[in-house]
Amino acid sequence: MPTSRLEAFSDGVFAIAATLLILNVSVTSGSLSEELVKIWPSYVAYAVSFVTIGIIWANHHTVMGQISHVDRTFLVINTLFLTVVAFIPFPTHLLSEYILKPEGARAAAIVYGITGTLVAVSFNVLWRYAASGRRLLKSNASSRTVDGISRSYLPGPFLYAAATVVAVWNPVVSAGLYAALALFYVVESSFFGDREGPG
Amino acid sequence: MPTSRLEAFSDGVFAIAATLLILNVSVTSGSLSEELVKIWPSYVAYAVSFVTIGIIWANHHTVMGQISHVDRTFLVINTLFLTVVAFIPFPTHLLSEYILKPEGARAAAIVYGITGTLVAVSFNVLWRYAASGRRLLKSNASSRTVDGISRSYLPGPFLYAAATVVAVWNPVVSAGLYAALALFYVVESSFFGDREGPG
Amino acid sequence: MPTSRLEAFSDGVFAIAATLLILNVSVTSGSLSEELVKIWPSYVAYAVSFVTIGIIWANHHTVMGQISHVDRTFLVINTLFLTVVAFIPFPTHLLSEYILKPEGARAAAIVYGITGTLVAVSFNVLWRYAASGRRLLKSNASSRTVDGISRSYLPGPFLYAAATVVAVWNPVVSAGLYAALALFYVVESSFFGDREGPG
Amino acid sequence: MPTSRLEAFSDGVFAIAATLLILNVSVTSGSLSEELVKIWPSYVAYAVSFVTIGIIWANHHTVMGQISHVDRTFLVINTLFLTVVAFIPFPTHLLSEYILKPEGARAAAIVYGITGTLVAVSFNVLWRYAASGRRLLKSNASSRTVDGISRSYLPGPFLYAAATVVAVWNPVVSAGLYAALALFYVVESSFFGDREGPG
Repeated sequence: MPTSRLEAFSDGVFAIAATLLILNVSVTSGSLSEELVKIWPSYVAYAVSFVTIGIIWANHHTVMGQISHVDRTFLVINTLFLTVVAFIPFPTHLLSEYILKPEGARAAAIVYGITGTLVAVSFNVLWRYAASGRRLLKSNASSRTVDGISRSYLPGPFLYAAATVVAVWNPVVSAGLYAALALFYVVESSFFGDREGPG
Repeated sequence: MPTSRLEAFSDGVFAIAATLLILNVSVTSGSLSEELVKIWPSYVAYAVSFVTIGIIWANHHTVMGQISHVDRTFLVINTLFLTVVAFIPFPTHLLSEYILKPEGARAAAIVYGITGTLVAVSFNVLWRYAASGRRLLKSNASSRTVDGISRSYLPGPFLYAAATVVAVWNPVVSAGLYAALALFYVVESSFFGDREGPG
Repeated sequence: MPTSRLEAFSDGVFAIAATLLILNVSVTSGSLSEELVKIWPSYVAYAVSFVTIGIIWANHHTVMGQISHVDRTFLVINTLFLTVVAFIPFPTHLLSEYILKPEGARAAAIVYGITGTLVAVSFNVLWRYAASGRRLLKSNASSRTVDGISRSYLPGPFLYAAATVVAVWNPVVSAGLYAALALFYVVESSFFGDREGPG
Repeated sequence: MPTSRLEAFSDGVFAIAATLLILNVSVTSGSLSEELVKIWPSYVAYAVSFVTIGIIWANHHTVMGQISHVDRTFLVINTLFLTVVAFIPFPTHLLSEYILKPEGARAAAIVYGITGTLVAVSFNVLWRYAASGRRLLKSNASSRTVDGISRSYLPGPFLYAAATVVAVWNPVVSAGLYAALALFYVVESSFFGDREGPG
């Protein structure tokens, strides 16, 4: 299977998962103008998850840009990774709905954090499987770029896991941390995992 | 990242956001034939938003057709732009549901207008970032075409902002303006932002 | 704009509209096994609409295969055509829900028929605009193929309009006609609008 | 029609059907933390169906990789095959909702199994139509690879049919078998239907 095919399918899942997020933004009966203000967590959750999926998409291309071919194991890991990515709309819905409620906020923030942690972990597994011993890398992939990518992806699982632990004490703070992580990855150079350029 | 990849992902979001609009067209219990007549604003809102996203898609290609490469900042702007585009189904739903109700019409029309304004603003930022100092342009991009595109995109934010202000006084008139804007962009030459042809 | 881009966007809309149809298949409370039998019109409506969109997709490629370039008007017609295609899930839902109910069946069948008629009409307009005076055709497009395509698309609007008229008297018969039309187009050679082959 | 077009449309349906599965994961009112535990069958059903569609996608590419061209009949079979694949979210919803309820579990498990069987049958028909007499195969497709693919796809219909029969006696066991089948196909070499490599 050429890598372009894998990218096309993965991109489809990224684009659909991101666009489905809007289904979590909804109003119930009552005064519409009051409702539209009251559901502000939906807007934030929508934007944070959409941008997070955008970052995942960009990082996935960085990985694919270093790879010459894929094998069976890589495809399995990629499918499991996409399974977790396509799950994101559900915890986003929970966070939109429950983050300001006394009961439910903690559970919602923990589920969001676990999902984020699993995305980060499975993405690291995907990359490390390809890069370990240069197993699937292009012959001209520079060691410096490869090491830079490895370093830039490493903190993700720990940062999401830490924010998940914070959710046990304070769900609102942990939700703020998820937003901060998305913002951080957008501005930080590791957005494309490669200091040499967006290549 | 090659521009073709960015186009493919963006096209996916455009196509999905447009196709999801149909989920806003629905009937509740009661006489079906009466319901089908009563929900006519849903049909109009569906068509206006679908065509609007079609115009955005065509304009996005006009921009990409002038660009030789993308950098990190362009990708971030593009992601934020797509976040706003994929939001369109929500205000479309509000307009379908509330435009004929005494309470809610104003809020619905204002949210639709703000979304349209943000789409137009972020699209202008996207283009101007690429075109400013010919930062990301193809070396053979003609100045006349580039200036023509810049001019044709400029009025968008102001037109949508003006229609949004009208919504404060008269939501129905502003909804008519959103429809008129979509119609105008379809027939106007700036549909493809390029007087030289659809290239 | 290259024709490949237009095809990719249109294919996205076809694939999404078809896949969204499954959202119309649902059960309400009550005995599940009885419910699953009672909703048999949902299965038929799902399959008929899915196959119909599949036929539209194949025919759209036949058209694009004869075209060398697209112009502004073609893009506008294509966008309006897609607006109607992406509407199909709504009348499919109506047919699933109301075809066996005394009240609602007629309205549902008429709306389905009108949508089908508009799809067929807009598709004919799309093709005839491209083919008239060989406006957008490839220079090597054979007249015989072009005329064959024109002939094969002509009956569609009349057949759907006739089935819609039947719905006024007997909605169930007209629903059967919609299914028969899908079946007919699948087996008939005009499936790909081209007797010379699927090329 | 080039095979790449057929692949792109089919991939779109695979990606959308997989990503729509998340809409089946939802909570109702009540204590959120208890709800999140109680709906564990949704998570399993989501993961099993997502991975199953991933396997179908990979196998579809294996088939397309051996094919030089498509004809009208192949397109019809492919459309019917996609109709069944895009149906998967519905039985997945049934399984999520009913597998632990005394009433409904059997019907849900049977519908899931029938769908799985139809997917496997239509996929075999698709491949066997292409491979029979090397009708649509590339001239350089090796007989050994072709025979290997034929063998590896053969058990699917029987395995799914057997699990469906089990559902009549014990729905929970049959649900376990569906999960085991997905797991088996992931680890087994027939994941890509080709012992020579993922080609």
